[in-house]
Parts: sequence; structure tokens; C-alpha cells
Amino acid sequence: MSLKETEFQLMDEEQLSVELIEAQYQLKNTSRQPNAKSVLILVSGIELAGKGEAVKQLREWVDPRYLRVKADAPIMFNQKQTFWQSYARFIPAEGQIMVMFGNWYSDLLSTAMHVSKPLDETLFDEYVENMRAYEQDLKNNHVDVIKVWFDLSWKSLQKRLDEMDPSEARWHKLHGLDWRNKKQYDNLQRLRQRFSHDWVIIDCEDEQVRDQQFAQHILRTLKHCPAHETTAVGRWKQAKTTQALLEPSTAVADEADYKKELKKLSRKVAEALRFDSRNVVIVFEGMDAAGKGGAIKRIVKKLDPREYEIHTIAAPEKYELRRPYLWRFWNKILPEEKITIFDRSWYGRVLVERIEGFANTVEWQRAYDEINRFEKDLYDSQTVVIKFWLAIGKDEQAARFKAREETAHKRFKITPDDWRNRDRWDDYLKAAADMLQRTDTEYAPWHVIATNDKHSARLQVLETILAQLKAD
Amino acid sequence: MSLKETEFQLMDEEQLSVELIEAQYQLKNTSRQPNAKSVLILVSGIELAGKGEAVKQLREWVDPRYLRVKADAPIMFNQKQTFWQSYARFIPAEGQIMVMFGNWYSDLLSTAMHVSKPLDETLFDEYVENMRAYEQDLKNNHVDVIKVWFDLSWKSLQKRLDEMDPSEARWHKLHGLDWRNKKQYDNLQRLRQRFSHDWVIIDCEDEQVRDQQFAQHILRTLKHCPAHETTAVGRWKQAKTTQALLEPSTAVADEADYKKELKKLSRKVAEALRFDSRNVVIVFEGMDAAGKGGAIKRIVKKLDPREYEIHTIAAPEKYELRRPYLWRFWNKILPEEKITIFDRSWYGRVLVERIEGFANTVEWQRAYDEINRFEKDLYDSQTVVIKFWLAIGKDEQAARFKAREETAHKRFKITPDDWRNRDRWDDYLKAAADMLQRTDTEYAPWHVIATNDKHSARLQVLETILAQLKAD
Repeated sequence: MSLKETEFQLMDEEQLSVELIEAQYQLKNTSRQPNAKSVLILVSGIELAGKGEAVKQLREWVDPRYLRVKADAPIMFNQKQTFWQSYARFIPAEGQIMVMFGNWYSDLLSTAMHVSKPLDETLFDEYVENMRAYEQDLKNNHVDVIKVWFDLSWKSLQKRLDEMDPSEARWHKLHGLDWRNKKQYDNLQRLRQRFSHDWVIIDCEDEQVRDQQFAQHILRTLKHCPAHETTAVGRWKQAKTTQALLEPSTAVADEADYKKELKKLSRKVAEALRFDSRNVVIVFEGMDAAGKGGAIKRIVKKLDPREYEIHTIAAPEKYELRRPYLWRFWNKILPEEKITIFDRSWYGRVLVERIEGFANTVEWQRAYDEINRFEKDLYDSQTVVIKFWLAIGKDEQAARFKAREETAHKRFKITPDDWRNRDRWDDYLKAAADMLQRTDTEYAPWHVIATNDKHSARLQVLETILAQLKAD
Repeated sequence: MSLKETEFQLMDEEQLSVELIEAQYQLKNTSRQPNAKSVLILVSGIELAGKGEAVKQLREWVDPRYLRVKADAPIMFNQKQTFWQSYARFIPAEGQIMVMFGNWYSDLLSTAMHVSKPLDETLFDEYVENMRAYEQDLKNNHVDVIKVWFDLSWKSLQKRLDEMDPSEARWHKLHGLDWRNKKQYDNLQRLRQRFSHDWVIIDCEDEQVRDQQFAQHILRTLKHCPAHETTAVGRWKQAKTTQALLEPSTAVADEADYKKELKKLSRKVAEALRFDSRNVVIVFEGMDAAGKGGAIKRIVKKLDPREYEIHTIAAPEKYELRRPYLWRFWNKILPEEKITIFDRSWYGRVLVERIEGFANTVEWQRAYDEINRFEKDLYDSQTVVIKFWLAIGKDEQAARFKAREETAHKRFKITPDDWRNRDRWDDYLKAAADMLQRTDTEYAPWHVIATNDKHSARLQVLETILAQLKAD
């Protein structure tokens, strides 16, 4: 989208400022409302085109307290990190505006332009496609993404380089590219055209026009805060609740061998996890008392606590609710963490949030695809995702609840909430059936483990981890 | 402190677990109460002594949802980072428990043992002294710090190395030191004795004793949640409010030269900031409408937004209130950020929080020293701290408030709060006088700038930055 196509005229500066500030406050007030949104502005472009100046001017027109600017040195893409991992924590909360100079596109360009062996164009396009999908997910989850390219012709760029103050030149050099090199310039322009068709392109010959085009575009975006859809249009096809969910097996492990077998498997799993070159994420879901904690304990038995991280997921905090529901998980899976275990997870979106109405129909129905993309991104960056649904029978759960109430050091594990959730047993089973059907992928398969017999469940979990690590 | 000295006996495991869980819940419920606290457990020791196992056992006895474990590869200390900078974000919130395997002591030991040129012992002791002071500040701000050293004799260590499973050996090697080297072992023991006199030392010959000594010590700590002092014992000596605060100069800049001068200085400041080898933190405090925003605008005029970060400080968020008041600033000053500007700052503790009663007497009176230590740490890690108090006359403020109300694009800058704060003008001046007297240090001096004339104020701010950068 070029702004030339839209009608553009200079506004009175004071008027523009007043409208921007009013729109900012309007945006701020949407937080936690049906039309809530935040605005993420990705800024890239040709050196000396003046993206810095345009952002600075914008900052002078708006209330700077509610506009954050993030700038980072370029990060080279590597195979062990998703493209969003270093940016996720800067995703703005509802009501906020964030300008990102360093962003996934500028990093993609840096990577493509700088490595001795340039990125294959197919890979480049794949990255772009993934970025688009990620941005769409952001938008669906209330983060409006605006992308602005500050453009400058080769001739004007050279002229500005000639006229540049030497001290600025020294600083600008830090940005890496040789802007005197026509071939590099052309290559950059060619590459960015592979993604910029949905960007706002600002021709930066004239400073005043540049600043106003940018600010006016932001203004239009801020003003547009329609209420979000809450009811789905399509028909929902409920998955069939399988026998494995309805009546989990009650087969019992051979008690004589259990301890020996457990010890052997614990050791094998520890070694397999420790020496795998990939990172591993293990997810546990299941009804209360299905044995998630017990299974986790056996996985880490032979590991040192420094080798893994366990996240026990409860209701989100307030500041987390103001961001996409996946945000808190984006920030919990770190490239430097070898083994990350989730006791409950992002699947809360399609389980408890669906059932309790914390997510509306549109939101939870959309979540399956969002989750699949998320797990695919992890898989593509060499992270193994192993998912368990621990299936317990309803009677067995009741027995365990009672045992918990009667055992002093287990009493903390049982709360009135647990009994209440039990009343919605069938709803949870239905939700689980949908989840298992829609998010059981090649890159992140589900494993349903019957846990009526704790011992055989634990052994199976360990065996399954070994099998998936081996298979991938 | 050796546990041998205290009475120790094994507890029934279930009883221990119940008491730990109860104490955890008690701790959790202190959050935002007069006896609020969090517990930070620093764990270090001899390899194979079993600190990992002891933490794992603790995790099995407690409710693991409220015990977090953080482990990091050792970080080598460097001169451009304070020792707490990489750990600050893991300081637990009130009600939480955090175990840190990687911590400032283990990093100090790594640094001392590993660098080709070992740390000078004076420097080592200085680090230890600073760490102690930092921990004391944590304790005063509701973070209880426990330090536990897991000890093992040379003989037992060698025996355990002999018996170790080969796969574990491979993993353990990652930790760096050569545990077969007696000289290294002795050196480590000698070094840790320079700081361990207030640590709990656990002799790890016996696993059961080890785990129970550790857990019982944690239990005692959790149980002890007395209410915090709120009234100071000593007499407070109010500083004299100087003339510079009471009646700021009304001298006016030469209008003819102003623009030229401003342009020249903006450029000089940009260059000085950009090419200084140190990081720079600039702090603005002052009454509403004193011109903080305007001064900041002129500092960054010739900088690119990617070169600096501006933090506008408002009331803390809920999750920030559950941590030491400096915590949100620890996390805003980053080693990789060249220039960080604060529009209001940590001085809120001794200004608005003092005046509005958000901090009690003990808290704000203690804050001056805490702030001085904080700024000294920054200074010692090659960060220049430049602090401005912008002094405006009361009449001039009223004039500016009115002007703001009458100018559409400035109206957002004025709220009922501003008028209310104005009613407490004298209290703010008194608080400012105390602040200026008690936190004007050699390493982070205050600059009081009269701002009745905006233009001369802006020029003075720029000149002052140049002067301090040059002087340091």
C-alpha cells in the first residue's frame, strides 16, 4: 500500500497533535473492554530516510508517556530460535503503543544481507509467510500491527550521505550496511519488495510530508477500535469423545518389576533429554488428580534441578490478561533452557477458558490453529514438543480426592475448585476430545495415557518420551 | 553459622512436609500485609555434595507451585555490569520463594577461579562487601535472603567422583572446575571462607541429614514473618530549604543567541553522549510543569531514537509493589542501553511516596542510603549518573498550568492531581531539600537548575551534561 494512492494533505500541526492525543486516550481506555487493542508499529527502511526523525516527531505530538520505543541491534536469525522469541516480551499490552525499530523484518533483512552465505530465497519467503501468520495471530488477539517502510531513492541517499555531519556518520556506520554500494542498495530494495506489499511505504524526500504521513497513518489506526467479534459464523463440529477418554484402561503394572523398571527408565530418560542436541518442551494436561505432578517427578528424578524448568500454570495475572493469551508462554520457553516442563499449559485456552467462558466462542475456536502454529515454530527451531493427556476415570478421581483430604501433606492439593470442576466432567471430556483431534500434529503429537493405575502411567510416560525423542 | 551448633534432629517426613506447606501458605498470605516477605535462597557448594538433590527433595515436600528454582550457567563478572544486574529480575515477589543456584556468589567464585588472571583479593572482598549491603537492602525491603553452602570433604568428593555414573560425569563436567585437582578444591574452600561466615553450612556426608537440615532451615525461615517496623527510632534532622529551591532565579537567557546556542549545545551533547565509552543515566526530578519534558526533548534532539531510552515513571504496577521499590529501576537500567533518561525516577520514594504516605517513615528515611548504594554500584560499573532537580517558582507553575489548560495539545499534561500536588508545595520543597542534601554524592551529584526561564534552563541542562561527562 503506497500512501500516494490515498488522499493525503498536510494537517495543522496543533490539530494533528490534539487528535493524536485524544486517540491515544481513547485507545488507552479500551483496555479490558470489548474493543480493546494495542498498537505495534514496525519501522524499517533505508538509512537516512529519517525513520528516527519521524518517530521523534511523533513522540513530540503525542503524549510520550503512552508511546514506547524499542530499538535493538540487529539479531542474526539462527536455527535454534524462533523469529519472535527475542521480541515477544515487547508486545504491547492493551491500551499501549510500541514502536519497534529492531523487528523481525529488519532482522530478516540483516540476516539475508550479511551472512557470508546469503539466505536461500525460498527460506526467506518461508520466514515472511510465518511472520505474516504470527502478525495475524497478534491482530486476532488485539494487537494491531502496522508496518511502515521509510523509503529513499538511491540519488537522495547519496546526497544525504555527502551532506552528513561526520560525527553522525560514525554512528550510522554501526548499522552495518555499506550505503555507498549501489548493488547492496538494489539488493535490499529487491528483498524488501518480497514482503512489503502490505506495508505503508513513505517516500522520504520531503521531511514534513514524511512526518505527517507517518503520524496521520498512526492516527487513523488509533482511531479505529471496533468491538471484537465474539460469536463464530461457521458451524462447530464437535469431535467424538473416544473410549480412551471415557473409560481409560485400568490395566495394572506388574508390581514386582515396577521399581526396577522405573529406575531404569528414569535414568534413560534423563540421559536422552540431557544429551539430545535439541531443546525439549513437555506438556501435561489432564483432569485434577490425574497424576501430572507424579509423572513430572519421575521425569526429573535423575536430572539436576539446574537442567530443567517446571512451570505450573494457574490463572493469568492481570498484566498477562492484557496481552495475547500465548504471550506468557512465549516468554516461558527460552532458547537457553534445555528442558521445560509445563504442568498445564497454553491448552488452558481450549479447556478451562472455553468451559468457564473466559474465552468467547471465536477466541477458543481460533485457538487450535494458533496453538498449532506456535508449536510448529518451536519444532522448526529445533525444539521437541511432547504432549500428554493423562486420562483418569471419574471414580478413580473421586477416590484420589478423598485420599488427599485424608492425608495431611496432600491436603493442599485439594480445593473446593477441584470439586466444582468435577461437576463439569463431561464438558471437560468434550473439550479434551476437540483438543486432541485438532492439535494432534506430526510435529507435536498428543499422547493419551491412562492413569487409573499410577505406576503403569508413569512407566508409559517415560517410555513415550524416549520413543518420541528417538522418532523425531 | 554451622548447623552443628544448633540442635538438629530428623523430623518425621510427613510432618516436615505438612509444616512446610503450612508455612508456605502463611508466607503467601503475607503479601501486601504488614508482615509481607518473600524468601530468596542462594545455594552454592562443592560439586556432588548434593545441592541439586536437596532442592529436589525440598520441592517434593513443599507445594511446588509456590517454589521457583532458577539456575544459570556461571556469568563472569565484567566491569560494565553490576553484580546484581543479571539476577534482579528473579528477585521473588512477596509471598514467593525462589531458589537461585546461579547467584552472585557462585559467579564471584567462578570469576575468581577461572580467569587467567585471578581476582585480586581486595577486589574479591569489595565484591563481598557490596553483596552484603545489597542483601541487607533486600531484607529491609521484605526479601529475606538465606545462603546455604553444601559442603563436602575432599575425601568424600573423590569417592563420589569414583562412583559416579559416566553419563552424569559428562554433564557435571559442564560446570567447569576440575574436581580432581586438590589445589583447586583447597583454593575454592579458602575463597568461600572469605564470605561464608553468615551462611548455613551443611555437611553433606549423609544424604538424609543434608536434605532435612536444608528443609528444616527453610521451614524456620518461612515461619518467621514478624511485622515490619514502621516508625523510626532516631530523630530526623530536616535539611534547610535553600534559596535555590525557595526562589529559583528568574534570570532570562539572551533571546538573540538562544536558538544558535541551543543548536550548538544539542549537537555537542549528542556527540558527547554517543562517543563516551561509558553508559549514561540522566534523571529528571522537579515540580509539575518545571520543564522536564522540554529539557529531555533538547537532549535527544540530535540523537536517533535507537540510541536512547526514555522512561516516564508513574505509579508502580501491582506486581511491582510486591517487590523492593528499586526493583523496577534495576530492571530498567540495562548494560546494553547506552543512554537511559528518567522523567521522574527512584527518587519518588523520598518525594511523592514520603509525602503521600505510600512509604512509611522507616522506609523513606532508609531510602537515601539505599539509593546512594544503588547509584554507587552503577558508577562502579562505568555508568555516569547525572541528576537534575528543575526548580520552578510557585507563581510560574500556576501560569504554566493555566497555559496548559488553554492550549488544546497541552491539555493532556494537566490533571486534577497536578493542582492537588500544588497544595503540598511546601512539603515537596522540604522533601526535595532532604533529598538534595542526602543523595548529592561525588559519584552521582545533583544539579539544581532554575527553570522560571525555560530557555536558560534548557541551555544549562545541556551545559551541565557536558561538564559532568568531561569531569568524571
